[in-house]
Amino acid sequence: MARLGIIAGQGRLPVALKQAVPEAHLCAFEGVGYAGEEHAQMHRFDALGRLMAELHEEGVTELVLAGAMRRPALDAARLDPLTLSLMPRLQAALRKGDDGLLRDVVQIFEEQGFHVIGAHQVDTDLTASEGVLTVAAPSASTRGDIARAASILAALSRVDVGQAAVVEGGLCLGVESVQGTDALLRFVAASPPELRRGQGVLLKAPKAGQDLRVDMPSIGPGTVARAVEAGLSGIAIEAGLVLILDRAATLAAADEAGLFLEAVNL
Amino acid sequence: MARLGIIAGQGRLPVALKQAVPEAHLCAFEGVGYAGEEHAQMHRFDALGRLMAELHEEGVTELVLAGAMRRPALDAARLDPLTLSLMPRLQAALRKGDDGLLRDVVQIFEEQGFHVIGAHQVDTDLTASEGVLTVAAPSASTRGDIARAASILAALSRVDVGQAAVVEGGLCLGVESVQGTDALLRFVAASPPELRRGQGVLLKAPKAGQDLRVDMPSIGPGTVARAVEAGLSGIAIEAGLVLILDRAATLAAADEAGLFLEAVNL
Repeated sequence: MARLGIIAGQGRLPVALKQAVPEAHLCAFEGVGYAGEEHAQMHRFDALGRLMAELHEEGVTELVLAGAMRRPALDAARLDPLTLSLMPRLQAALRKGDDGLLRDVVQIFEEQGFHVIGAHQVDTDLTASEGVLTVAAPSASTRGDIARAASILAALSRVDVGQAAVVEGGLCLGVESVQGTDALLRFVAASPPELRRGQGVLLKAPKAGQDLRVDMPSIGPGTVARAVEAGLSGIAIEAGLVLILDRAATLAAADEAGLFLEAVNL
Repeated sequence: MARLGIIAGQGRLPVALKQAVPEAHLCAFEGVGYAGEEHAQMHRFDALGRLMAELHEEGVTELVLAGAMRRPALDAARLDPLTLSLMPRLQAALRKGDDGLLRDVVQIFEEQGFHVIGAHQVDTDLTASEGVLTVAAPSASTRGDIARAASILAALSRVDVGQAAVVEGGLCLGVESVQGTDALLRFVAASPPELRRGQGVLLKAPKAGQDLRVDMPSIGPGTVARAVEAGLSGIAIEAGLVLILDRAATLAAADEAGLFLEAVNL
């Protein structure tokens, strides 16, 4: 039987996964920022051999890399044989962007016999299937804005930019760049009030071809709070492909503010 | 011989055009925001017949609409016959966005026998042909970022978004939305310093298919000041298609700050 291993980074996701799959084996690297309340088996990035052995001993066959990780400091004196043999690749990977680094890490785990999957493949409750999740629902004109935002994200996907856009009344009020969704929503909140008539929408979706095993778009209660500050009417996410972290709190915050949250097929 | 008429809105552009073509006939509508130091013949939006007659009497054959205009208040009691006959179209146009309104206004002037042209067609000194205009020049890596920004703008053009993007080290730090270039640069200035290593570039260019007679991208000394605050190394503009308002002051500000300004063929 497949046993799940979770390599835990920052944020709520690793804990949410562990709670959804209590029998999963939870590991984290020292110094990359895991701070969840669930006990994690701690490992060092310069001792990958020990980690691989432990995962095999624990019967782990499927692995999920959950949550962003700070780049680890590597102590050359402590490198174990496996890590040492991987150093040329890891050094090249560390010179790439975070996505490039994580893609190489995925490949290393795959070569060691683990099947690396995305968090959305572990527990479907972390994403949403098509439909409105809140008391409020988008208006007809807001559905038009969601379609416009989807066409903007599709265009940006081709140049590898953006997992989110804000549209109101057909006007694009902002596109996510490398600073992330919260920065986008703060930008919208600072825009002239005549552009924000309370009908705007944030659409969040992965880029076309994005490797969801290394980077998956997510929303949470903080996203709802920022959307309220930006004067939006709601949030749309791509069905099945965007994580809802702390789903109960996210939906409660949206309902309290009268925002809609809808999962849409794009 | 063709005589130029200038319908003056806000900002430096109408005055710059008048100074470049002193024999041009300068008109403005009351209440739309012309505040230049050059004398303009004042007109009312509800008396378009008088304006058309004056333009014909003055021998005007080519017209440029220069500078953004605030939407005028129309006094129904004062509508002259021509304006009255145009009211159904003007009312429909006023319900559109500013670009849609201006496209209809262009068409009305064309029907009255005037050839409406873009400011870039009046005086080539208002735009720049290909080349570096400043003491500083872009580095090889910044030229790569200009190319990346160009591909982002080309993708956004297809969905009618954005006349500007900021890129540094291959990362997109921001895309212009309806709030304009200054808002984009303030957003970049507020981004985490580790994303801004002093090598970034702002690229500004019209959208593909944009009607430059009603809306033309421009930069000026204020753009340079915002770019400095954003920690950029320079500004690239599309050759021939982006207005440089107050060219001397713009180049002086860039040189003083050590920024480059380059006109590029896209």
